Amino acid sequence: MGERVSMNYDIKDIGLEEKGMLRIRWAENQMPVLGLIRERFRRDKPLEGMVIGACLHVTTETAALANTLKEGGASVFLCASNPLSTQDNVAAALVSEYEIPVFAKRGEDSQTYYSHIQSVIASNPHITMDDGADLVTELHKSKKNIEKIIGGTEETTTGVVRLRSMAREGVLRYPIIAVNDASTKHFFDNRYGTGQSTLDGIIRATNLLIAGRTFVVCGYGWCGRGIAMRAKGFGANVVICEVDSLHALEAVMDGYSVMKISEAAKVGDIFITATGDINVLRREHFALMKDGVILANSGHFNVEISLPDLDSLAISKKEIRENVEEYKLQNGKRLYLLGEGRLVNLACAEGHPASVMDMSFANQALCVEHLARHAKELSPQVYGVPKDIDEQVARLKLASMGITIDKLTDEQAKYITSWKEGT
Amino acid sequence: MGERVSMNYDIKDIGLEEKGMLRIRWAENQMPVLGLIRERFRRDKPLEGMVIGACLHVTTETAALANTLKEGGASVFLCASNPLSTQDNVAAALVSEYEIPVFAKRGEDSQTYYSHIQSVIASNPHITMDDGADLVTELHKSKKNIEKIIGGTEETTTGVVRLRSMAREGVLRYPIIAVNDASTKHFFDNRYGTGQSTLDGIIRATNLLIAGRTFVVCGYGWCGRGIAMRAKGFGANVVICEVDSLHALEAVMDGYSVMKISEAAKVGDIFITATGDINVLRREHFALMKDGVILANSGHFNVEISLPDLDSLAISKKEIRENVEEYKLQNGKRLYLLGEGRLVNLACAEGHPASVMDMSFANQALCVEHLARHAKELSPQVYGVPKDIDEQVARLKLASMGITIDKLTDEQAKYITSWKEGT
Amino acid sequence: MGERVSMNYDIKDIGLEEKGMLRIRWAENQMPVLGLIRERFRRDKPLEGMVIGACLHVTTETAALANTLKEGGASVFLCASNPLSTQDNVAAALVSEYEIPVFAKRGEDSQTYYSHIQSVIASNPHITMDDGADLVTELHKSKKNIEKIIGGTEETTTGVVRLRSMAREGVLRYPIIAVNDASTKHFFDNRYGTGQSTLDGIIRATNLLIAGRTFVVCGYGWCGRGIAMRAKGFGANVVICEVDSLHALEAVMDGYSVMKISEAAKVGDIFITATGDINVLRREHFALMKDGVILANSGHFNVEISLPDLDSLAISKKEIRENVEEYKLQNGKRLYLLGEGRLVNLACAEGHPASVMDMSFANQALCVEHLARHAKELSPQVYGVPKDIDEQVARLKLASMGITIDKLTDEQAKYITSWKEGT
Amino acid sequence: MGERVSMNYDIKDIGLEEKGMLRIRWAENQMPVLGLIRERFRRDKPLEGMVIGACLHVTTETAALANTLKEGGASVFLCASNPLSTQDNVAAALVSEYEIPVFAKRGEDSQTYYSHIQSVIASNPHITMDDGADLVTELHKSKKNIEKIIGGTEETTTGVVRLRSMAREGVLRYPIIAVNDASTKHFFDNRYGTGQSTLDGIIRATNLLIAGRTFVVCGYGWCGRGIAMRAKGFGANVVICEVDSLHALEAVMDGYSVMKISEAAKVGDIFITATGDINVLRREHFALMKDGVILANSGHFNVEISLPDLDSLAISKKEIRENVEEYKLQNGKRLYLLGEGRLVNLACAEGHPASVMDMSFANQALCVEHLARHAKELSPQVYGVPKDIDEQVARLKLASMGITIDKLTDEQAKYITSWKEGT
Repeated sequence: MGERVSMNYDIKDIGLEEKGMLRIRWAENQMPVLGLIRERFRRDKPLEGMVIGACLHVTTETAALANTLKEGGASVFLCASNPLSTQDNVAAALVSEYEIPVFAKRGEDSQTYYSHIQSVIASNPHITMDDGADLVTELHKSKKNIEKIIGGTEETTTGVVRLRSMAREGVLRYPIIAVNDASTKHFFDNRYGTGQSTLDGIIRATNLLIAGRTFVVCGYGWCGRGIAMRAKGFGANVVICEVDSLHALEAVMDGYSVMKISEAAKVGDIFITATGDINVLRREHFALMKDGVILANSGHFNVEISLPDLDSLAISKKEIRENVEEYKLQNGKRLYLLGEGRLVNLACAEGHPASVMDMSFANQALCVEHLARHAKELSPQVYGVPKDIDEQVARLKLASMGITIDKLTDEQAKYITSWKEGT
Repeated sequence: MGERVSMNYDIKDIGLEEKGMLRIRWAENQMPVLGLIRERFRRDKPLEGMVIGACLHVTTETAALANTLKEGGASVFLCASNPLSTQDNVAAALVSEYEIPVFAKRGEDSQTYYSHIQSVIASNPHITMDDGADLVTELHKSKKNIEKIIGGTEETTTGVVRLRSMAREGVLRYPIIAVNDASTKHFFDNRYGTGQSTLDGIIRATNLLIAGRTFVVCGYGWCGRGIAMRAKGFGANVVICEVDSLHALEAVMDGYSVMKISEAAKVGDIFITATGDINVLRREHFALMKDGVILANSGHFNVEISLPDLDSLAISKKEIRENVEEYKLQNGKRLYLLGEGRLVNLACAEGHPASVMDMSFANQALCVEHLARHAKELSPQVYGVPKDIDEQVARLKLASMGITIDKLTDEQAKYITSWKEGT
Repeated sequence: MGERVSMNYDIKDIGLEEKGMLRIRWAENQMPVLGLIRERFRRDKPLEGMVIGACLHVTTETAALANTLKEGGASVFLCASNPLSTQDNVAAALVSEYEIPVFAKRGEDSQTYYSHIQSVIASNPHITMDDGADLVTELHKSKKNIEKIIGGTEETTTGVVRLRSMAREGVLRYPIIAVNDASTKHFFDNRYGTGQSTLDGIIRATNLLIAGRTFVVCGYGWCGRGIAMRAKGFGANVVICEVDSLHALEAVMDGYSVMKISEAAKVGDIFITATGDINVLRREHFALMKDGVILANSGHFNVEISLPDLDSLAISKKEIRENVEEYKLQNGKRLYLLGEGRLVNLACAEGHPASVMDMSFANQALCVEHLARHAKELSPQVYGVPKDIDEQVARLKLASMGITIDKLTDEQAKYITSWKEGT
Repeated sequence: MGERVSMNYDIKDIGLEEKGMLRIRWAENQMPVLGLIRERFRRDKPLEGMVIGACLHVTTETAALANTLKEGGASVFLCASNPLSTQDNVAAALVSEYEIPVFAKRGEDSQTYYSHIQSVIASNPHITMDDGADLVTELHKSKKNIEKIIGGTEETTTGVVRLRSMAREGVLRYPIIAVNDASTKHFFDNRYGTGQSTLDGIIRATNLLIAGRTFVVCGYGWCGRGIAMRAKGFGANVVICEVDSLHALEAVMDGYSVMKISEAAKVGDIFITATGDINVLRREHFALMKDGVILANSGHFNVEISLPDLDSLAISKKEIRENVEEYKLQNGKRLYLLGEGRLVNLACAEGHPASVMDMSFANQALCVEHLARHAKELSPQVYGVPKDIDEQVARLKLASMGITIDKLTDEQAKYITSWKEGT
């Protein structure tokens, strides 16, 4: 562990700070909405005295968020929400320039990962910020330092699903706002962000031509939709696998081929999982695949592609290109796994583009402010993002793009809520 | 009014029945889900003794629905939900072959339109079916025969908006299921159905090449989205106008130009309204338009393009092609209005394709059955479609297309609802 | 045969002239380039004294072309290039208003069709205009009146292929300009025109929802490409069948499924031929098809779908909707043939939109003018469209759309033709 | 200069060979067509005794090509065709593993670049291979060692344009095959290859979200088309600038906005040049641009964006992210130049994906073989790729993808070349 200005932290190399700062500045350029909020926070200090424990991907965008909270008066403690997603130069810049304690190293092992979460818990936070609910889960397992917490936020679908289970089982101990459920979050970040960055990750890792490939997307939720849309946009022949009839039907109408994974396994060239569930691609599917196929995951956890099954089927395994592992199977076929089956957009590329995180993190900042003010009025449940926060983010984003839209006339506003006008 | 087998009806020409029957058969071929429900209804007679008053577009698909209800044991009385959307040969076939009383003539005037609604009210229905809420509104204005009604269904967004207003104001007298809100309805019919059929209506009316035109869509709800998607798919340069920041932002991210109508008015070649609101295109916009532009409406009522404004600006007006009226303005420009500003897909083409109505009307049939069984348990509010009905429709539709999808394994079903598994 | 102002003609009903005139005016609105040429022709009379024998689809756009030639001083005689494509009210307007002799009736039998070609030959033309080379072929078979002819034009791919064969075999007797080969023709009309109008024809005939259907396109030339692009744009899952490796590869890279017709036959919902060849869909394919599939042809002649094979496999055949014939096969399946297998965009819709024909027919008019001036310098071969005509058409079209483009600077013009500047 | 096995070469670091070899193997996996040719060359040695001087981008795909030529019996000498496109580990592997002399270092200055070309000339080649015609130009300037050369190949549009100028001026001294003109080259590599890799380069350099951006493409040739298609596929609002009316019209019909650069400059967020010409973006355009715009070039030479103009307008310039330079203008705006204005797909990403280079380089290999056999029959002109080579490449590529296509029946083959069958 390093120490600086009497501050604890644990990062790879503080010397990387300069490159980190340049990269953070670049991201901040693309985050005008968060920038406007930061200016207000700097002026009004709405988070004065708050300690915030955050478990988020340690990226340039998160740095911009952490800095915003700090400008608002908060003390921020940050650990990683995924062992492979930390950008070490960003961690260095956060510690060195922003004096925000960070506990995260790219490629840390599981034990270090959890000890870093404990370091954040040790900061005795009032508010938690999570991306996948690992911090909340650890807090609820150990119960340590949980009493002082007034509320939290959660960034991603997977985390929200977990938290809803906890609330249903009655074990959730404090209110959490599901930032993921903001329209300005999941409609944009899960779709446009994940869509582009997943393709980006696959292309950076492999330099494959997407055009003409059979591209299998498992899961047609918002993420899967975004991925499918972008793969099609790059000329792929897209196949969708789903378990939900409604989503499957939508995929059909969107012009995709829809089939069971066991059928898709025979024809696919590239497979990507985005379901939030476990063992989506497994032994029985690997056995059917063609020689040379690519396997990648875009879901939050590295459980969607069964690594145990892959290992047990393989006679050899080696990294043949950065982030590309070749599994040679007993049947002679070679399967290529990207980024160890972790979320490919962070493991093999730079995660969501800053401009889409701008909206997600503007929601985060405003929800933390909302908790600071209103947490007492809330009970230990999972809450949606207040409607006015969502709308404010959309409005600011459009304005930052120089786009003006229409307003309802008085007559129109009245008409749309009246029922007496007919044919 | 005609009379047949001691039955009252009012249609254009009973002699058109043969062509109507052929067209209904063609539609039924494309409606396999409703077909399966019809078979069950024929066997089980779940609607025995029910009188159903329906105010729907009198099309081949509605005929298939009406017949399904009749096979279920109901007496059905049908009037039109729009003066221009009636297909007279379908009306003839309904009366003649199915012995279902119909009160509808294509092109009927406003007085006839409302007297036809009164004819349906006179049938003393137990259940109402509406598309735009004109029947419900008339019932609530006159209060005649309203006591016996146990419930109703509503097909379209506009109607649901009106009914919600009524419920909010406490004037709604019986429970109504918003069929429009079923996922298998509005995700499909409003998007894929309206999208294709709106383009179809414009092309049939004008035979214009869509490629290369600036195509302005006012409203980026599900209908507007569908229209924009199909216009883009035909090579148009699409411009979106919106009043809602979130929808506007989504349109931007979908790659469209977004601007105020007053800006779009200067550059557009084709304008289409799909907002559900009044006077969307009006005097100030007409004045800015280029010579030769096309104006069409895809919203439920013909109020979106201000006809009074158009009339007052014009020095002459004539029909120069079927369903195309030329307005010559004082400034010398010519604007071409399609289908008198009524919903262009019904006025200038054949409305939604049968296969998409299959899902909407399967929901209708199952919701009517649900009302027949459970109306007593409901209060005078607007209800969503029961989730199991929605899922049943999606499942049957996929099956009818020969598409099989995956099922969650036990392990996956458990994982997706658990919160203990983390990174 | 009718007679008017001492003029011979043979059309369905001269009384249809008014509707024809309105429709022609509408088309002329969409044909600004031809309009500019017509104005010049009216002034300069470059075709004074020329007799032009034209065998073209008798549509509104052809009327605009015929009128342009007449304004240029020519006498024009017109017959149909397809028995099903004649618009009878246009024929009436041409005779009545423009005093151009027309020999064409929608639905005429084969004998009448050829006798109408003979009527045009009897006019003793100097220049022929063809769309499919039937007029040229008849002339070369009978040799009647062929000596006086100085040249001709040909509109379509199929015709050009035939004429090139004739030139190769040394039997072609006069020079012909392949208007089809103009970039402003085949890049636009064959792709954007055929693409949209083929979908339009299928939708008008069937009212099917295209989204989610498996749409098989046989032939990936410019027409096939346009059709595939538009089917995809309407949400279809598109399958391409080809015999040319290069085209097939391009289809793969464009994201389509590529397979043999015998495979596509098993999965397709809608089949469309656009190859220019014979018996593309035949007995062996029909036998594999699913119940309820749609068959349509977009190629010039009705030989692409084997009607004899279809007839011999069918146990019954009836028209169940305008332009839709149901063939019930011995195996119980029903196949639906659109427009008797003739080009579906003309048989079931209105053919190419006027604005795309604007370019094709501007080329026609300018090529006829070119022949009138330069025919003597040409030998009996198939010629391309002179480059300056092609460029002139593109320039005028852009200008008519209000689009301004860049010009090379002197420095750029020099650089692009120099070889000395390097890295 | 290094020396190994008595071999001259000049590369960055021979120690990088291992990583280079892994990367070359990965590329070879994606190049099955070249692989088949390599096997035949190894067996038949068609290039025995030939010295080949190649000036190509030193990438993994070029390595696969060089190795193929060597297996065919040739001695290959390689220099870079662009100072920024060399992959140093590939250069190391070529020298170390394949014993092919390479003269190329990523980032070499202009003097070194040309001295490396001279090193290749010094090898006294029989055949030249060029990508941009710098090698040929140097040879023709100095005349050194030019007599022995029997022929050459040229890979890219820019080079072909230069060579055609030379041929026209009568200065070209030996025959050159324009590999670029093969359909299996420019239809694929210029469109799908450049399209994907240009977007890839921009995204890697900036991590910007493409969706919702106004993306200006200067030039709508095959490269520009590919770029526009992929930018649209990633959700951009695409604007096209052109000088050719026909291309501009096609862009309009493809649904893009078309305008002059001086108009586009005001609205664009990202600008990309793909014209092959000089000073496409220059002082007058920079002055109009918004703050924060991105400038990139996809054309062969770094002359399309005027660097002198940019420098003269800027008050400061610094690299703020790898491959991203910030130019702060006097007017306060910041413009971001990617990869120093060199071809962005090679400077900021990995160039064309291997699978598309597979076809280009299969053509290269077969054309070199063709020259070895037939050069004597050729005169000093620019030749197209022999048709049978082109078709062979397409056929092999389809086969490598497991795709089978139809063959013409005898009847069809006869019909398509006959002219007697009509309506």
